[in-house]
Amino acid sequence: MSEIPYKIYLEEQEMPTAWYNVRADMKNKPAPLINPGTLQPMGFEELRGVFCDELVKQELDDTTPYFEIPQEIRNFYKMYRPSPLVRAYCLEQALGTPAKIYYKFEGNNTSGSHKLNSAIAQAYYAKAQGLKGVTTETGAGQWGTALSMACAYLGLDCKVYMVKVSYEQKPFRREVMRTYGASVTPSPSDTTNIGRKILEDFPGTTGSLGCAISEAVEAATSTEGYRYVLGSVLSQVLLHQSVIGLESKIAMDKYGIKPDMIIGCAGGGSNLGGLISPFMGEKLRGEADYQIIAVEPASCPSLTRGVFAYDFCDTGNVCPMAKMYTLGSRFIPSPNHAGGLRYHGMSGVVSQLYHDGYLEARAVEQTAVFEAATQFARIEGILPAPESSHAIRVAIDEALKCKETGEEKTILFGLTGTGYFDMVAYEKYNNGTMSDYIPTDEDLQKSFAQIPKTE
Amino acid sequence: MSEIPYKIYLEEQEMPTAWYNVRADMKNKPAPLINPGTLQPMGFEELRGVFCDELVKQELDDTTPYFEIPQEIRNFYKMYRPSPLVRAYCLEQALGTPAKIYYKFEGNNTSGSHKLNSAIAQAYYAKAQGLKGVTTETGAGQWGTALSMACAYLGLDCKVYMVKVSYEQKPFRREVMRTYGASVTPSPSDTTNIGRKILEDFPGTTGSLGCAISEAVEAATSTEGYRYVLGSVLSQVLLHQSVIGLESKIAMDKYGIKPDMIIGCAGGGSNLGGLISPFMGEKLRGEADYQIIAVEPASCPSLTRGVFAYDFCDTGNVCPMAKMYTLGSRFIPSPNHAGGLRYHGMSGVVSQLYHDGYLEARAVEQTAVFEAATQFARIEGILPAPESSHAIRVAIDEALKCKETGEEKTILFGLTGTGYFDMVAYEKYNNGTMSDYIPTDEDLQKSFAQIPKTE
Repeated sequence: MSEIPYKIYLEEQEMPTAWYNVRADMKNKPAPLINPGTLQPMGFEELRGVFCDELVKQELDDTTPYFEIPQEIRNFYKMYRPSPLVRAYCLEQALGTPAKIYYKFEGNNTSGSHKLNSAIAQAYYAKAQGLKGVTTETGAGQWGTALSMACAYLGLDCKVYMVKVSYEQKPFRREVMRTYGASVTPSPSDTTNIGRKILEDFPGTTGSLGCAISEAVEAATSTEGYRYVLGSVLSQVLLHQSVIGLESKIAMDKYGIKPDMIIGCAGGGSNLGGLISPFMGEKLRGEADYQIIAVEPASCPSLTRGVFAYDFCDTGNVCPMAKMYTLGSRFIPSPNHAGGLRYHGMSGVVSQLYHDGYLEARAVEQTAVFEAATQFARIEGILPAPESSHAIRVAIDEALKCKETGEEKTILFGLTGTGYFDMVAYEKYNNGTMSDYIPTDEDLQKSFAQIPKTE
Repeated sequence: MSEIPYKIYLEEQEMPTAWYNVRADMKNKPAPLINPGTLQPMGFEELRGVFCDELVKQELDDTTPYFEIPQEIRNFYKMYRPSPLVRAYCLEQALGTPAKIYYKFEGNNTSGSHKLNSAIAQAYYAKAQGLKGVTTETGAGQWGTALSMACAYLGLDCKVYMVKVSYEQKPFRREVMRTYGASVTPSPSDTTNIGRKILEDFPGTTGSLGCAISEAVEAATSTEGYRYVLGSVLSQVLLHQSVIGLESKIAMDKYGIKPDMIIGCAGGGSNLGGLISPFMGEKLRGEADYQIIAVEPASCPSLTRGVFAYDFCDTGNVCPMAKMYTLGSRFIPSPNHAGGLRYHGMSGVVSQLYHDGYLEARAVEQTAVFEAATQFARIEGILPAPESSHAIRVAIDEALKCKETGEEKTILFGLTGTGYFDMVAYEKYNNGTMSDYIPTDEDLQKSFAQIPKTE
């Protein structure tokens, strides 16, 4: 066996040519999306008004294990993929752990995160269908940036509804999207009915992701030649993000490495779902076993403290409803700096797998997350996104446990992105003014009470 | 011949193990640094008060062609190198040019630029000498960030004097440095004699790079266990940066590619000097010919409009003097957003090579640079730093010339870094409020008049 390099880059010809659909190997399939009005499962005809046709097919297909990646998407992937699988030699040494730590680093592209993997796929199918453009929402801005990049590449119009507080507090994110030619509107706005209604009901509101989703969906469904696209939660997104896990697995197999433990941060579940997919497939088929850990913020703990139920995906209740672990669509997460993890719900695929015991979940507090982020930055050189740092926290904790027990576990975690646009958060941490917020049980019960009865 | 992949990554065992010292192949050596008081060449004993011993040796050695890269530095390099040599297939297609465009991308590390290549080397030698820490200045912040990272890795103290206007306008850059454990002081400050004098003479000044250099040198030479380090201009820096050119050349040789033209942006000359080193070596030895183009901002045109003379490197005249193309150390560049290219002087090595006709220089205006930057971002996906975009501008211009002539030239340019911390500049460009400033001949003559007579 040759020595493991610091970074494993696949050759172009080793890169995956098909996405893997983990649903094909799930005995208990994720529950279908339902119509918030009729509560009936939504089929192709109903969904194609919102999403473009090929993506609806992907969303509905829970039996086909592999979907070929179109050549144009594979060419785009070649611009920034393969992403490196990094052996964290320096971190291992600094921790003094016998554990072997690997991370799959998805931050080496301008969107700064893994979001680009699905953005290019969704933009590609919209373009192939002859559409003029797409609409979406963005909170922290990573998804909006990724989609802007993909649309710029394909010559597609891109309308982004950006949560107003982020629009104002993250002007640089906004400018990156504009540089890529997107139009960026602070949400709620007066460009949609739902936006006007929210502004009327809650004057001075700084917006929420759920509200921005409603506006983006309305903008898409009311404009000829547009469709809505979403950066997480949906099964189609997890399908595209499987490229993360597939590349990881090919690289590890090449060097004969088998992870004992796979760790990913989880907001809507796109990164976690993508990273674990092929490993989970083996686990579901009984071919291998892995300990799989989803890490979420203690301030927005959908898996660890939420309920498994059908719920709205957005504030305006215009989206299909999904069965998922949820804190209630009206849940307002306490302030935290991992904007990408502040969603009230969770991918239906990840939720079902968690419900069936195939993965475990942990909630971590913000200050502990930034402590890990700073430690990691100084040792491994990469400035991690706050979201990604949730996975770093647990990876370090597990490596330190190995130090105590002497176990030489192999840990793989997903480093989803970089923190260049999160320096306000780092500044708070550097100044010692960062706080931890955890919702009370009463808060959660109030929020759960608003989840509609569907069964 | 196998097809050229989108990105060429060297294997770890293919990475350079020694830096190349282009001075060894120069017939006309760069003139020695001289003492600003005595005007006599400075030797080892005089320079070792400012720089650490090994770096003084490297600075003075213009005959040894290769310096082995210490193993610890090679390990650090493995965390973020090899950097990819990218074939810009998408850009070629978008331009419709028969030219083949390659770029060496140095932005995939947290410092966001090539600066880390020399930062780790300088920090390593300081640590090896048993020093407690290093001091430096930073303008745009890339060098300060890189040095902070290197010092964090090695456990060395790092004091950064940051030009006050950047300190205030780029708080996020400042926070990245603090995250890596550096202390960051806005310059001019009251922590040094020269800083206090400048504050007294020019109350309300927002500082300059030349002033920050003076403060950093004073802080180093007046504190036990500290030395000063500099991110550009010096021959030692070009030596370390030769890793860029060496990796490029190894990758190109592997695929049988020979560039006709090599393009780099030039501020102090560290990136350009590093990128061209091994190619220039062949050219100096008569083994090959390459067209080599240095690109500078029209607002700070040291090569294209400066004079070749001994000049001060800093405002306080505490640094050694260098013979270089200079606009005069009191030259205040008109406002522009490529902070890394606003230095009044130029590397002595690059200056001598230019003087001897081995490379040519072009000055480009800011708006044209951002036009190229935006075009590049949308097509190739990477958001380039304003500095790097100077090289992009000329690469695109040359590729378009090939489109006219039908020539299939092979172009290599250096993409030194990313623009995540430059969104204020992009915002101006997006809003159509960016201006071009070019110094008048009168401005330059006034500035030249302050260059001391040394010969």
